[in-house]
Amino acid sequence: MTHQGRIHNFSAGPAVLPLSVVEELREALPNLQNTGIGLMEISHRSETFEAIVESAKTRIRRVLGLPGDYEILLLQGGASMQFCMVAMNLLQGGVADYLDTGAWSKKAAAEAKRFGDARVVWSGEAEGYVRVPGNDDWVSSEEAVYTHYTSNNTIYGTQYHHDVTAEHLICDMSSDIASRRIDGSRFEVIYAGAQKNLGPSGVTVIALSPWAVERSDPNLPSMLRYRLHVEKKSMFNTPNTLGIFFLDRVLAWIETQGLEQVEATNRRKAGVLYDLLDSSDFWVPIADRGSRSLMNVSWRLADSSLESKLIEDGLGAGFSGIKGHRSVGGIRASIYNACPEESVTEFVAFLREFERKNG
Amino acid sequence: MTHQGRIHNFSAGPAVLPLSVVEELREALPNLQNTGIGLMEISHRSETFEAIVESAKTRIRRVLGLPGDYEILLLQGGASMQFCMVAMNLLQGGVADYLDTGAWSKKAAAEAKRFGDARVVWSGEAEGYVRVPGNDDWVSSEEAVYTHYTSNNTIYGTQYHHDVTAEHLICDMSSDIASRRIDGSRFEVIYAGAQKNLGPSGVTVIALSPWAVERSDPNLPSMLRYRLHVEKKSMFNTPNTLGIFFLDRVLAWIETQGLEQVEATNRRKAGVLYDLLDSSDFWVPIADRGSRSLMNVSWRLADSSLESKLIEDGLGAGFSGIKGHRSVGGIRASIYNACPEESVTEFVAFLREFERKNG
Repeated sequence: MTHQGRIHNFSAGPAVLPLSVVEELREALPNLQNTGIGLMEISHRSETFEAIVESAKTRIRRVLGLPGDYEILLLQGGASMQFCMVAMNLLQGGVADYLDTGAWSKKAAAEAKRFGDARVVWSGEAEGYVRVPGNDDWVSSEEAVYTHYTSNNTIYGTQYHHDVTAEHLICDMSSDIASRRIDGSRFEVIYAGAQKNLGPSGVTVIALSPWAVERSDPNLPSMLRYRLHVEKKSMFNTPNTLGIFFLDRVLAWIETQGLEQVEATNRRKAGVLYDLLDSSDFWVPIADRGSRSLMNVSWRLADSSLESKLIEDGLGAGFSGIKGHRSVGGIRASIYNACPEESVTEFVAFLREFERKNG
Repeated sequence: MTHQGRIHNFSAGPAVLPLSVVEELREALPNLQNTGIGLMEISHRSETFEAIVESAKTRIRRVLGLPGDYEILLLQGGASMQFCMVAMNLLQGGVADYLDTGAWSKKAAAEAKRFGDARVVWSGEAEGYVRVPGNDDWVSSEEAVYTHYTSNNTIYGTQYHHDVTAEHLICDMSSDIASRRIDGSRFEVIYAGAQKNLGPSGVTVIALSPWAVERSDPNLPSMLRYRLHVEKKSMFNTPNTLGIFFLDRVLAWIETQGLEQVEATNRRKAGVLYDLLDSSDFWVPIADRGSRSLMNVSWRLADSSLESKLIEDGLGAGFSGIKGHRSVGGIRASIYNACPEESVTEFVAFLREFERKNG
């Protein structure tokens, strides 16, 4: 148990958030920045709120290493809405390559097929999604408008640790955005639901290159049109104001530490977990070694009959959200940026003790 | 100035919320219902959160007087997304009638034209949108699939005070939902962005009749398909969990008072404002008497040069958000459910004094 009766939360998303940012939100709720108006009650057209939006966008540009001519949208609907909007706006009957590394990339490709020739040029499905492809494992379609991939796969616990090479890259970074340094200029579109590394559910971050803005279909329904949201600076209609405030404060929390430091901490946290899993045959990691996620660590127990006991004992000991996704089973610990290092070290101690008693 | 340095907030939306509910939210943020997990950090698939969703839906059914076989969706994207989704799902190339009573109903019709023959069968535009139509003012298209109207118009301060009669009614109730008793069974679809009467921005309430579910297009992109959201109980992807919690708590706040009481208070609040505006030629109400909104009171000053002074003096005296919409000018006080009666009576006293000094 930690501060204020909070337990260790390893949920895959919505997920644990920085407690200091939660406290900032609590302060702003009845009275934002001494305006006399609560955060949720202030007009999205007010100068106060517009400054928050601009701050959030500037921080996103810095944290993702995006060039100044990229547009940042802060919309609603999650990554699932982007599966549709990316293809509606950019595919327009053309060919696109999709790398299938799990449930989410598969859904993205399925939505895109409605709007053009979305080709799954590599799929890990037959192997149980235990790895991401290397650049030599697949071949780009010559006429591909873009190539889409999912940088981190929450269910199987896999993640790309190399730069995917293709022209016009589009990446769903929902589950590892802002967890490590990237060169944003390599991407035409980056999108992410906020509810894993950036904030509460209900806000979606979208970064569009000039190419993406230029190519996007100008004739779609208003709410589905990237160009309109660019023109209206994400204020075509009322955005999720609380979510955007929180996003800005989480990004400030990241920038105060420095993204390098955040990345180093993430490597340490995942490292102690994988070290344990590699230390004995009692544990069976799911992802191939070269594709292991620093955000979601998924594994089985050699004696699978012990898994439900581990989940139950874990909950009793204050470790929540460790049940693996139903499609994979086993155990999963989601350890995004805001997961405290002590949650991981205490969990590893618990796991060692569990192994000692049951091994 | 009221509790905790809060000023009187007459913003059109996001708008003032019940302070007691804001306090409930603050308590839930670090630790929801003693789960040890914060509200924003708990899985949307958890039993705790699923119970919140069910509670919110049940309250919506009661407050809107909806039959038990209506489906309630809690989605993202605001009313603007529903302008598109209503027509995509239900129009399907057919004819629909739209009553144009202002900017929002006009936008709804414009989006619908992409998906069929959306006919504006009555428009108040030439009259400056100062009233809503009576049932004898327009004629239904014989082949209309549905008739769409906007129950309250925030900009001009007009509202329907009679039952619109047409088959298959669809109503955008964003700005007066849950402010008065209605018979929900009269509607096929009711939708509303939450950020005026129900909560923070980022949640949209949609009620669908069995007819609407049955008619809705099964071949749309996933996120735009009513049927999918019905099947998945609004959990196809991660919903705005904080927003849904808040919505449930606002509805509890309404039900604790009783909707009759809420409606009576709303009538009193609007009454004292309109009484003042009718008391002297110094003030010039915008809406026709029979169409006056109980939610948004819009008016001009006979000497329009005094309007900016009133807005400035008002802000100095702790009355915020009273500037009329740019398309109308003048003054607007938005007095949704959560606007305290004392905010209105103190504002009226301020207005009387302003008239005395400047009249």
